[in-house]
Amino acid sequence: MEPGTRIESALDRAVAHAEAPGAPPLLAEAIRYAVFPGGHRIRPRLCLSIARACGEDDPALADAAAAAIELLHCASLVHDDLPCFDDAPTRRQKPAVHIAYGAPIAVLTGDALIVLAFETLARGTRRYPARLARLVGLLAKSAGSPSGITAGQAWESEAHVDLSAYQQAKTGALFAAATVMGAAAAGADAEPWRHLGEALGEAYQVADDLRDVACRQEEIGKPAGRDATLGRPNAAALLGTGGALDRLARLTREAIGAVPDCPGAARLTAEIEAQARLFLPASLRPVSA
Amino acid sequence: MEPGTRIESALDRAVAHAEAPGAPPLLAEAIRYAVFPGGHRIRPRLCLSIARACGEDDPALADAAAAAIELLHCASLVHDDLPCFDDAPTRRQKPAVHIAYGAPIAVLTGDALIVLAFETLARGTRRYPARLARLVGLLAKSAGSPSGITAGQAWESEAHVDLSAYQQAKTGALFAAATVMGAAAAGADAEPWRHLGEALGEAYQVADDLRDVACRQEEIGKPAGRDATLGRPNAAALLGTGGALDRLARLTREAIGAVPDCPGAARLTAEIEAQARLFLPASLRPVSA
Repeated sequence: MEPGTRIESALDRAVAHAEAPGAPPLLAEAIRYAVFPGGHRIRPRLCLSIARACGEDDPALADAAAAAIELLHCASLVHDDLPCFDDAPTRRQKPAVHIAYGAPIAVLTGDALIVLAFETLARGTRRYPARLARLVGLLAKSAGSPSGITAGQAWESEAHVDLSAYQQAKTGALFAAATVMGAAAAGADAEPWRHLGEALGEAYQVADDLRDVACRQEEIGKPAGRDATLGRPNAAALLGTGGALDRLARLTREAIGAVPDCPGAARLTAEIEAQARLFLPASLRPVSA
Repeated sequence: MEPGTRIESALDRAVAHAEAPGAPPLLAEAIRYAVFPGGHRIRPRLCLSIARACGEDDPALADAAAAAIELLHCASLVHDDLPCFDDAPTRRQKPAVHIAYGAPIAVLTGDALIVLAFETLARGTRRYPARLARLVGLLAKSAGSPSGITAGQAWESEAHVDLSAYQQAKTGALFAAATVMGAAAAGADAEPWRHLGEALGEAYQVADDLRDVACRQEEIGKPAGRDATLGRPNAAALLGTGGALDRLARLTREAIGAVPDCPGAARLTAEIEAQARLFLPASLRPVSA
């Protein structure tokens, strides 16, 4: 099955559990609204690519890991868009969850999606139960404190920001989760895959900064120019569009150089190059040779 | 070790992980503030009582399950107190987290505590890894949608409330988690323990309604009379103080009648009676024979 189809199908099965009979209707509706339709599903695609490169021996577990990472990502988007953070009116070309359903349901949707991420992981480990503790630990590391996406967002409340810790936690953590959990889901040693994820996360952050500075709202599905409005650091504002594009290319090469020895290294390298191209909207992509 | 000491120690170890070097200082501080000092720790005490009654063979796992349930409970208090829900100024005799640290840190503290609950569970299963999937599933059921505390809170956003689903999810779910996870942590069959937890949860809800109607703020550590202010159903308002006390006694007897056959049934019954007495503040407790 094609990776995109596997991911949508795994997410659909996960969300269906949260919609089971007895669920409060608005919450159930908002959970689905927050997950579908998605963006490029970059993190779960990366997770599946790594699992296959490591000789994937349990596709159901790789699917569960990929879905768990995406559910966590969706949770963070819903909470980050709240009025007390970015107060973002739109997300993925439609009203943000707090606009469509109100702030209380948006808070609860994020909470329920975090729970669903761990639940989905546990459901995926029927064949290899011994892998679950490691996977839960890796997912938690990417999500909580001291260095997960929650910690990343919390740096925005600090008077003195550790910029590298901020960006690594806010963006790098979930990319690192995608690589290490892809490996762990395949029964491989996880940590050698972390640097690849971190480098890709940094590349994605530069691309996101470029989108924020150089694109119109219609193309990126959320308001443009938010970093300047919110006073956040932005690589494209700092280096210029050309400088930021150069940095993005350098980070992508660094990521590819960080791919550990594995059976599927050649194919994986091609996939990472293709996925990194998707970081940028069409108007900013370099023309391929 | 005495159960109260075991619980505080397990919570302290869990919170210490979230405070590890690199954590954003305000978030780390707020996480500890939300967990310590605690209330009566009724849910984790119940969890440990059930684990022992089932012949606890791995105290570290029972401690992890108890701590996970309490962390989830603390997360729900932090989020329920937010301005978009109860807008509660105080909790456990001190300013609520959103008053002390602001709404953004309060949202993230709740998120980080949910993550920490699952992480703590995973760390506790070194000896019996095969028990983790079941425990994660039970914790998730008590936390998310369709029937966990998140769903319970979401019923407050519905125009037509299923009152029984609301109370069962909002209060019963975590008591049921305490009993079924106590059993599962001891390697016993979990589901026979669910009804006991649900009955105790209903008893606790009646006691909480009594506290809200009959006590002053200084005694209960949070504002009194909130149910009337927020238009929420309240058993004491409906049945009168005497009627609600009768109902509480009946539910406690029902809970005790629901204790499954187990090695430690007699001691457990005494513990449940003692714990149910703690549901009420001193001024409302019936005089013991």
